[in-house]
Amino acid sequence: MAWTKQEQLYDGKSKRVHTTTSPDHVVVEFKDDATAFNGVKHALIGDKARVNQAISAHLFGKVAEAGVRHHLVEVISDTEWLCEKVEIIPVEVVVRNYCAGSLAKRYGREEGEALPWPLVEYFYKSDALNDPLLGADVAVLFGWAKRWELAFMTEQALAVNDVLRGFWSDLGVDLVDFKLEFGRTADGRVLLADEITPDGSRLWEKGTRKRFDKDVFRRDLGDLGDTYRELYAKVFGEALASA
Amino acid sequence: MAWTKQEQLYDGKSKRVHTTTSPDHVVVEFKDDATAFNGVKHALIGDKARVNQAISAHLFGKVAEAGVRHHLVEVISDTEWLCEKVEIIPVEVVVRNYCAGSLAKRYGREEGEALPWPLVEYFYKSDALNDPLLGADVAVLFGWAKRWELAFMTEQALAVNDVLRGFWSDLGVDLVDFKLEFGRTADGRVLLADEITPDGSRLWEKGTRKRFDKDVFRRDLGDLGDTYRELYAKVFGEALASA
Repeated sequence: MAWTKQEQLYDGKSKRVHTTTSPDHVVVEFKDDATAFNGVKHALIGDKARVNQAISAHLFGKVAEAGVRHHLVEVISDTEWLCEKVEIIPVEVVVRNYCAGSLAKRYGREEGEALPWPLVEYFYKSDALNDPLLGADVAVLFGWAKRWELAFMTEQALAVNDVLRGFWSDLGVDLVDFKLEFGRTADGRVLLADEITPDGSRLWEKGTRKRFDKDVFRRDLGDLGDTYRELYAKVFGEALASA
Repeated sequence: MAWTKQEQLYDGKSKRVHTTTSPDHVVVEFKDDATAFNGVKHALIGDKARVNQAISAHLFGKVAEAGVRHHLVEVISDTEWLCEKVEIIPVEVVVRNYCAGSLAKRYGREEGEALPWPLVEYFYKSDALNDPLLGADVAVLFGWAKRWELAFMTEQALAVNDVLRGFWSDLGVDLVDFKLEFGRTADGRVLLADEITPDGSRLWEKGTRKRFDKDVFRRDLGDLGDTYRELYAKVFGEALASA
């Protein structure tokens, strides 16, 4: 690591961000905190930070091979990354291959319906407003993103979906949906930022539809730590080392 | 009227529909019922049916001059229309010139902000689901509308907005937003259907921002009957005749 960690910039629900001696870089630190329903439900889950860091770094590597540029520069510990500093665009991009979660609830549909093609939805990133659904026109009109940025993020998100669907399918898992965030660098690039983890994805075992994602915590379906360690073993072919 | 009214097809929150001896025509009857919050709040407002019928017929005439085709064939009484029979497309089209109502609430904005250009939003027409916001992709994916129908409805709605903004402005009123519904005829046309009334529009007096719409009822701002009769007098230059 070329730069040393300095003061804390931001303490989020599942990650902390620190400045570094480089103005263009930050340290992102994964936390063991699990939250749901906009922070109403909260718990500390042992190993969550290590599992999410390792899986997300692995998946960022995969999507980079497909040409998707992201903010991760270097893994600097089992819970920390050196990243390019970005201004997060307040538009969350969700890609869905199956109907589940808020889509099912909003339109009164069953969960598990396969969609005929991948659906991209935007949400306005606002804890205070519970991340409301967002149309492209409103995002542009209120100045939250440029039209080209939305088009770029959508194309990148669909490219990520192609890579990840295949990746998870090879491990016997259906990628139901996932959320991405993007950020702007000071020199005008838009990068995939944040993380790609089972916190922000729905991952269902093929056939059984056993959940390998944060719905286990949201819906009290089992032990989230055990679930995440099992997912780690699927991805890396070996058990997570003891902390 | 060329056809006689037959059995009731549908009894809605503010209108009733009857079949006629023509398979391609229905009779639409305006009711005095006012509802809000998806029917939770309800009252009978004397003269509401007559005011809404007269204003909507007048506005349908204005938009027809601009080339917008609608379902109204003939006014057959002061509360009844003969209309082309359509299958209503379950996508409500809302055009907004100012931020108000659900847009302001959803994104935590002040009411009254002028939008830099007219915003078109879609909502899924479902009382059971409280008419949720709807993206074009979802509407197409779930089969609620074809892509060309959404494009057509959007262009028609913007044409209606151009006409109505000018119409209301000449009467000293700002057209804040309004909702349209469209329907499909058996021979494959898409027509503007439903109504254009102060029930489904926001109309603010310039300067004072006095409300001339159903927000008077929703928000207990005064007597809705008096408000609607005052609006009638603005539009027609004379008071509504006694019933």
